[in-house]
Amino acid sequence: MNLPLGYRYAATYAGIRKEKKPDLGLIVSDRTADAAAVFTRNVVQAAPVQVARRHLNASKGKVTAILVNAGNANCATRTGERVATASCRALAKALKTKSKFVLPASTGVIGVEVDSKLITGSIDRLISTLSPDNFDAVADAILTTDTRRKIAFKRVSLKEGEVRVAGMTKGAGMIHPNMATTLGFVLTDTMLPPAVLREMLRVATERSYNSLSVDGDMSTNDTVALLANGASTVKPSAKERPLIQEAILSVMESLAQQIAADGEGARKLIVIQASGFKTDAQARQIARTVANSPLVKTAIAGSDPNWGRVLAACGYAGIPFDPASIDIFLQDALVCSKGLAADFDETALKRRLDESEVRINIIMNGKDRGEARFFSCDLREGYIQINGSYRT
Amino acid sequence: MNLPLGYRYAATYAGIRKEKKPDLGLIVSDRTADAAAVFTRNVVQAAPVQVARRHLNASKGKVTAILVNAGNANCATRTGERVATASCRALAKALKTKSKFVLPASTGVIGVEVDSKLITGSIDRLISTLSPDNFDAVADAILTTDTRRKIAFKRVSLKEGEVRVAGMTKGAGMIHPNMATTLGFVLTDTMLPPAVLREMLRVATERSYNSLSVDGDMSTNDTVALLANGASTVKPSAKERPLIQEAILSVMESLAQQIAADGEGARKLIVIQASGFKTDAQARQIARTVANSPLVKTAIAGSDPNWGRVLAACGYAGIPFDPASIDIFLQDALVCSKGLAADFDETALKRRLDESEVRINIIMNGKDRGEARFFSCDLREGYIQINGSYRT
Repeated sequence: MNLPLGYRYAATYAGIRKEKKPDLGLIVSDRTADAAAVFTRNVVQAAPVQVARRHLNASKGKVTAILVNAGNANCATRTGERVATASCRALAKALKTKSKFVLPASTGVIGVEVDSKLITGSIDRLISTLSPDNFDAVADAILTTDTRRKIAFKRVSLKEGEVRVAGMTKGAGMIHPNMATTLGFVLTDTMLPPAVLREMLRVATERSYNSLSVDGDMSTNDTVALLANGASTVKPSAKERPLIQEAILSVMESLAQQIAADGEGARKLIVIQASGFKTDAQARQIARTVANSPLVKTAIAGSDPNWGRVLAACGYAGIPFDPASIDIFLQDALVCSKGLAADFDETALKRRLDESEVRINIIMNGKDRGEARFFSCDLREGYIQINGSYRT
Repeated sequence: MNLPLGYRYAATYAGIRKEKKPDLGLIVSDRTADAAAVFTRNVVQAAPVQVARRHLNASKGKVTAILVNAGNANCATRTGERVATASCRALAKALKTKSKFVLPASTGVIGVEVDSKLITGSIDRLISTLSPDNFDAVADAILTTDTRRKIAFKRVSLKEGEVRVAGMTKGAGMIHPNMATTLGFVLTDTMLPPAVLREMLRVATERSYNSLSVDGDMSTNDTVALLANGASTVKPSAKERPLIQEAILSVMESLAQQIAADGEGARKLIVIQASGFKTDAQARQIARTVANSPLVKTAIAGSDPNWGRVLAACGYAGIPFDPASIDIFLQDALVCSKGLAADFDETALKRRLDESEVRINIIMNGKDRGEARFFSCDLREGYIQINGSYRT
């Protein structure tokens, strides 16, 4: 059994999105969970983001339920605040808990009012179908332009017994570090205090969602929440905490990679590894710049080993380096050696670039050890077809 | 007569690019011109950029000839330095001048060695065809993925007589402020000392090439040079200098707009105006972020008045502002009023978004007066078709 104990799930079609498929999801923890969350750093923040942050503060990091809809971001809306709070209040009442224990989240179009009755009118239906087996149904209800469900699981054996971590996410466009139209919910049945959860989420976010770029756009609604309800009754010792951290990171890295691989119109996951830079932060900036370069992303789409574009992107990352010390590998083949063309078999490499995962390694030769990894995807016609008419 | 006096031009096919059309251009000033130039800020700089900068320093801002090729960037090449200096030396010898008075420039693929004989072997042919009438021929020879010639002209009447400014440029992709695969050559027959030219070029570059984004990629070869040869014998008075500045700016703005309008695969020029921000720099950062947003660029491609994406892009520009104070106009129609959806005729607006020039105005309501303008283009399938196979 992969799913953490003590959580139930439900999804329904509330009529928020045009297409008639589930657009409202509910996650309930049987006992109130300790929780941490990270939100978009966009100056423009959707109402549910503001309300979620407020609830989390008021409850001192306790969450009983997550109420999430797709199809409407409830952002830049006159009634946004009212809709978000009314939905939480109605759910809290039905669950016999307080509003502040409900975490709302939304994704979809910006600037269109939400009819709050669509949500409040669906709550009884949701609650009556709550079940530990509906995890996938909620994971499906939060999708927008995604082409597939994105979930990940991890089990950890501790001295006192086994604990589980499960995650679901959505996101295919407007994806950028710090962050994007990303909703991510990571649930565990271990027992951890909110301060520890916050730190674990921070570390894991940095190396997963914040190391991910589909198009460089950052949304107004990003929310990633981590809940620990203790239903396993297994409490990790201080020494075992790194194992939990590792499991959470592993789940979130998998979710982030699934987002990149499902980037709008994309066919390939691109994993960029930069190493040998002065600091991790410098390596990160290099990897991020390459991850965001439309010219690199289109070259990979065309299986073109055009390493000059990778080199040029490194060069405008704002990080000083000696071009004569840089090596670039594509699919583990050396294509640029000390800043110059290496001798490689172009036909063979082109074939290998057709694979669904493309690795770009950027290595500064020297004694520095700063490194970072970033996830991206190729840029294809499909991205434009999807985004030229998303709203209409 | 629009062309400045005292310049001659020649172009030929030297065999540098595969396609058999002119790829080598020469501009000669009959008298040594005062000159200023700006170059890419990419850490990785092509050999001709390094050589051009060195020549300009050695000559204290004097230029007799510009030698420019398309089809090969001469960047990340073992022999780059040798090829660039040998080409300049051969040209200088044939023109009976010194190498330091020759400004080299290259554009094209990165990481492929240039056979210097292709260039040196073409110099006699170029010189024998030098003519004041071949301006357009050079403007054509520098093009790569451009679909059309990009030139601009301006005449200014001063007290002593008339002076002329003419410019040619190339660039359709890898276009980003500070700068991109942009070559630009602006020629005037007025008389101005190098220090004044440098300042005029700096000001005009900021508001033209550095206010331009096609794909956010920045190249290794960007060079914009401004030459003043005094052939008109008209020397502007100190009071008249702003007129010259204005003419140079007007030519360079036109060139920048032509680049944006011809962005790879693009059909529309997007002009983004941000105003009412604390400083011009803040307005610039907002306008630049909107200009670079793939989601905004694809929405415009689809004539979709999706102002939520404009608002979201403003929000992640890194500039603090109150979303409740922002107005957004598309084609002069108010679509977002004080951060909320305005009431607009969607069908009519969609039709107006089909025009070849799209204006996005972002206005912060308040007493601040910082403003900026940025040029961009829509993002279409063509960009990906061009860049998925540019090298192969």
